[in-house]
Amino acid sequence: MKELAIGIDIGGTNTVIGLVDKVGNCLSAFRFSTTDYPDINGYVDELCNQIKNLHSLSYPSVNIINQVKGIGIGAPNGNHYRGTIEYAPNLVWKGIIPLAKMVSDNLKVPVQLTNDAKAAAIGEMIFGGAKGMKDFIEITIGTGLGSGVVANGELIYGNDGLAGELGHVNVVRNGRPCGCGRNGCLESYVSKRGVIETYNEFRKAVNENSIEDITPPQIVELARKGNAIAMKTYDETGRILGQFFADAVCFLEPEAIFIFGGIAQAGDLLLIPTKHYMETNMHHIYRGKVKILLSSLPGDTAAILGAAAMIWKMI
Amino acid sequence: MKELAIGIDIGGTNTVIGLVDKVGNCLSAFRFSTTDYPDINGYVDELCNQIKNLHSLSYPSVNIINQVKGIGIGAPNGNHYRGTIEYAPNLVWKGIIPLAKMVSDNLKVPVQLTNDAKAAAIGEMIFGGAKGMKDFIEITIGTGLGSGVVANGELIYGNDGLAGELGHVNVVRNGRPCGCGRNGCLESYVSKRGVIETYNEFRKAVNENSIEDITPPQIVELARKGNAIAMKTYDETGRILGQFFADAVCFLEPEAIFIFGGIAQAGDLLLIPTKHYMETNMHHIYRGKVKILLSSLPGDTAAILGAAAMIWKMI
Repeated sequence: MKELAIGIDIGGTNTVIGLVDKVGNCLSAFRFSTTDYPDINGYVDELCNQIKNLHSLSYPSVNIINQVKGIGIGAPNGNHYRGTIEYAPNLVWKGIIPLAKMVSDNLKVPVQLTNDAKAAAIGEMIFGGAKGMKDFIEITIGTGLGSGVVANGELIYGNDGLAGELGHVNVVRNGRPCGCGRNGCLESYVSKRGVIETYNEFRKAVNENSIEDITPPQIVELARKGNAIAMKTYDETGRILGQFFADAVCFLEPEAIFIFGGIAQAGDLLLIPTKHYMETNMHHIYRGKVKILLSSLPGDTAAILGAAAMIWKMI
Repeated sequence: MKELAIGIDIGGTNTVIGLVDKVGNCLSAFRFSTTDYPDINGYVDELCNQIKNLHSLSYPSVNIINQVKGIGIGAPNGNHYRGTIEYAPNLVWKGIIPLAKMVSDNLKVPVQLTNDAKAAAIGEMIFGGAKGMKDFIEITIGTGLGSGVVANGELIYGNDGLAGELGHVNVVRNGRPCGCGRNGCLESYVSKRGVIETYNEFRKAVNENSIEDITPPQIVELARKGNAIAMKTYDETGRILGQFFADAVCFLEPEAIFIFGGIAQAGDLLLIPTKHYMETNMHHIYRGKVKILLSSLPGDTAAILGAAAMIWKMI
């Protein structure tokens, strides 16, 4: 019988459940609405019932729960050590939710839980571009900026499970206000909102109105057509990210830094300036040694692969 | 027979050799002049002959080389992976010196080599205040600023042995020139030279002459007597260090950050502002959770204990 892991990606809107084999094939995935279950007990019942009812695609009469070696969950504000979701601002359940225990009590299989970015890092290590690497950093850039740091072949969770919040490293003293209540965090410059804000700042500097509802893909499109402000926006985003990478290397000397998530779709428009500013700001002992790579995880199932990878890493 | 490790601290001026037992007692230590041996072969012969001639203090007829389980070496620019000293600016030997292999070939015992700050971190973990901790940072502040980073109970060496150069993280964009050729590195503010420069900058700001030959202990003395510029110097040093720690915590979430070396002797004069600025600049999820502690390694034998600790950690 083929061994399988289940990867679960819990988002504010949807929960996606996927069946993943040992080499990173996502055999099937299905979703339900997270917001339909404002009570956590109802949510766990729904989640577990869906898993209990998983059947083989080829032989629909065969229930496959016995093939499942474990369940990995990636969730916002997930704490690996405690298996909890803690005060997640974008989820309906408030306070501390002991989700890993609730699911394993129900299904009697091992459950691992961590936050989305750490799950992506484990996915990169087990199935993606970091295969065989012992030291790397995964940066996920979307609505916010998350990260997973791997050193000596192990994810760094820190003393209380809170390591790897690189989105909240200060990059501009007294800079832009950040959602965390402080100023000048990396996330307030390198994220969906950060890119849009930079674009509008550059527009204002030449007395053009800001366009609040523009999206990063639209700015990419403009830059590719030669729009100067759009090009400058990605140069500036790359400058801040590259300078930050130059410092991150002093901590960890990773073999590579992987970029994942919506903003990564800018491709070379972001990568080339990021590399340039990393190299020119870096201590000479590191120059030319650290790769910046786009994640090789498939965008649509990466969160599930990462969550499931925790199980294969554990076994 | 009591098991022993040898710890060797190679400095630009002196080499110190110490015998260390499993619980961190330095049973005896002796030194010779590094600069007397400009040829590395002559140096290795002298070093190994001294070790071969080690005898029991209680029973001088007993040679103790058979009790030695291994030799740990802490050296500037030491590379743990390769057992080499690489382009150390303050040592007489140029280029890459395969010292670990030279010593183990001569003495037929295992030899581990790393840089001084990483050795101090291992010493802290095995014999000092970090006993039982899995995640901590050791910062050594003297002529320069070195560091050793421990996560998941293991020192982080990085992809090529060059992780943990925290002295070269940028803390002031376009700031003071640093010995590494760049500007605004942590080391150019938080180090012996950095403290003196800050003191003289504050003197100049009130139109007083700078005092180039003042020392940090003298500035400490002045501050304790209530001298405003000296007090402001340590507040400023603590501000830069504390802000840096707030960022370092985002990477690693250590249980504690240990401060070691000459500048640490300022004690509370440095620790209190450092704590204050760390807490006030830190993401709220970390507040009140990270200790800043003075190293509990004895100043005079710490380098030897750290070097020897590599052997006990390895066994």
